[in-house]
Amino acid sequence: MPESIKDKIAIIGAGCTKFGDIFDQSYEDLLAEAAFAAFADARIEPDRVEAAWLGTFSPYAGNGKASVSLADALRLYGKPLTRVENYCATGTDAFRNAAMAVASGVYDVALVAGAEKLKDRPVRGIAWEGGHPYQHDGLTAPGVFALAANRYFYRYGADRTALAKVSVKNHHNGALNPKAHFQMEVSEEQVLKAPIVAWPFGLFDCCPTTDGAAAVVICRADMARQFGANYVLVKGLGLAVTSGRPWYDAAYDYVGFAATRAASEEAYRMAGIRNPVGEIDLAEVHDCFTWTEICNYEDLGFCPKGEGTHFIGEGRSALSGDLPVNPSGGLKSFGHPIGASGVRMIYEIVTQLRGAAGARQVRDAELGLVHNLGGPGAVACVIVLGRS
Amino acid sequence: MPESIKDKIAIIGAGCTKFGDIFDQSYEDLLAEAAFAAFADARIEPDRVEAAWLGTFSPYAGNGKASVSLADALRLYGKPLTRVENYCATGTDAFRNAAMAVASGVYDVALVAGAEKLKDRPVRGIAWEGGHPYQHDGLTAPGVFALAANRYFYRYGADRTALAKVSVKNHHNGALNPKAHFQMEVSEEQVLKAPIVAWPFGLFDCCPTTDGAAAVVICRADMARQFGANYVLVKGLGLAVTSGRPWYDAAYDYVGFAATRAASEEAYRMAGIRNPVGEIDLAEVHDCFTWTEICNYEDLGFCPKGEGTHFIGEGRSALSGDLPVNPSGGLKSFGHPIGASGVRMIYEIVTQLRGAAGARQVRDAELGLVHNLGGPGAVACVIVLGRS
Repeated sequence: MPESIKDKIAIIGAGCTKFGDIFDQSYEDLLAEAAFAAFADARIEPDRVEAAWLGTFSPYAGNGKASVSLADALRLYGKPLTRVENYCATGTDAFRNAAMAVASGVYDVALVAGAEKLKDRPVRGIAWEGGHPYQHDGLTAPGVFALAANRYFYRYGADRTALAKVSVKNHHNGALNPKAHFQMEVSEEQVLKAPIVAWPFGLFDCCPTTDGAAAVVICRADMARQFGANYVLVKGLGLAVTSGRPWYDAAYDYVGFAATRAASEEAYRMAGIRNPVGEIDLAEVHDCFTWTEICNYEDLGFCPKGEGTHFIGEGRSALSGDLPVNPSGGLKSFGHPIGASGVRMIYEIVTQLRGAAGARQVRDAELGLVHNLGGPGAVACVIVLGRS
Repeated sequence: MPESIKDKIAIIGAGCTKFGDIFDQSYEDLLAEAAFAAFADARIEPDRVEAAWLGTFSPYAGNGKASVSLADALRLYGKPLTRVENYCATGTDAFRNAAMAVASGVYDVALVAGAEKLKDRPVRGIAWEGGHPYQHDGLTAPGVFALAANRYFYRYGADRTALAKVSVKNHHNGALNPKAHFQMEVSEEQVLKAPIVAWPFGLFDCCPTTDGAAAVVICRADMARQFGANYVLVKGLGLAVTSGRPWYDAAYDYVGFAATRAASEEAYRMAGIRNPVGEIDLAEVHDCFTWTEICNYEDLGFCPKGEGTHFIGEGRSALSGDLPVNPSGGLKSFGHPIGASGVRMIYEIVTQLRGAAGARQVRDAELGLVHNLGGPGAVACVIVLGRS
């Protein structure tokens, strides 16, 4: 049987840029800002890093770049730098590969960076361009997730007011976060009256288009203390890929994502979590659309299938709830610069577990979860982090 | 100090498609053919694989696809599948990440697959499109490497006849290999009289444009024997990334690649190799152009800098030489479907170490090396494999 890497890897530094419309910093500028913040936080010089992983979805003439640009941005020459791509789970999967490499004993200290610039040019090479049959139906990301949301409404009797509560909550949290793209409260009425993008999603049900970067430094847990006492431990990792064709599969129920269920089961098994409710104190989950967050509650086991609207309605995922979700403000407030998002979510959980999240601090945060979903809906990565 | 993963990982199965102009098989068809050949060779059912890594350079609307397509091609659902990209070292770096993940103890058995289709559409998003300053000078891959070859000629007094010997050797080897794109001998006169692509490279100095896929199954070495006695052990891994701007750096000498030197030093250190000559029995190296192979001899430590033309001239890298290089026929005969190449080269070394290479078998093959170079010239990955 495979072993667990629980408690073998520590996060000793984390950095994150301001997210937003960033026309005055290049891709390399963003990477350098995030990475040097992580180095300073870990109290190391860049050269202490023995290897690095870069999460970027669309490099070259797309919105990001690749390993050579990481080398040039950080002057990190002659070292092993790998780019990982896994749709919208790119950032978390880059972290997962780095964590396993350090757990293998090959490296003591490694960097994980995620970056993407979505504003400089339109997205090209997106997941369903070219490769997937539903491209030919013109289905965009909002369109694909809207199909599922409508089916969910039909099956469980929910409506747009539940979605609006997610938007209000995440915009409230984002308003408390100086690194968020949008730092503004919205009312339920504003959300419900906004222009429709793809029914049932209005403008405030969709995450914005954003630039940003984030980075963390990891090391072997048994040497973490030499970098300071303020480290965070990796408790569990899970990644799962399902079919890219669920939307055309007559057996697909359209109301959840098997990838999230499989990835979280693996991460919970590794972390020794039997029931996430009561054990996990907070979570950053993939709210590309408001409905996705409700679906994630269910797929991650925070509540039974079909009860996600109650979970948000009862305030359980609010900052003051029993399982705060997206205390950072989520993709709703941060946007989704694809490769950056997962690493940015890890940055938030590290900050919360350290008790350093200021106005948005979750009380008694000891165990936190990070979740990405992409592909679309076919790839999920879950990471569980705990206070040292 | 980091530990070594020497002898901790075994390759228990390998598969490879015919390389060539493959219009009658899709990307998924190629992946499935290579992977199922590797499963059969390892005597496992696909479901025995706990995780997989896919090496593809240009997915989506490019020439390849990503993790979800690997899941669909192999019906490998609900498992962790990662795509790695690292320019022309994509295939070898995918293998490196898989090997470290298994060495970490998280997985017992993993698949590494590499695939690319270059014929269905022109390459887009190539390394120097968009990201690098020399794009604006119109420098293509032949142009970039030709700059270095000309400088090398000037500095070391070499000429095109040395390059032609590489082409003659690799085409000779490829003629013995039924999986090669080109199975044909060429004469030195043919090579020298061929149309010039970018001086000093003529048509037979350049690798062709090709489709193909390859796959290997790896496992923890301590459980390898249960799959059969015919496994191969990973002895060393090295990856290094240098600046993407060497060609504009006034200090760059244009006659070698620091990435290859750093990656091979790391792999040799892990494998306990002091002098590759006399210890390594054969090598598959990155001969994207004939000159690149000569430069690789030197950067990999097979001979001193400037003496690579003697190394080929004296027949040392021939099948009958003391260090046969590219016994498969190399990129010269196989082309370079980018993500496939590194895994295809691992397939060749595994086949040789098993003594199963037929007419192109290298005598007493016990320790073999795989080398990729990309980025262009900024990224190198080296893998050392040994007989069990």
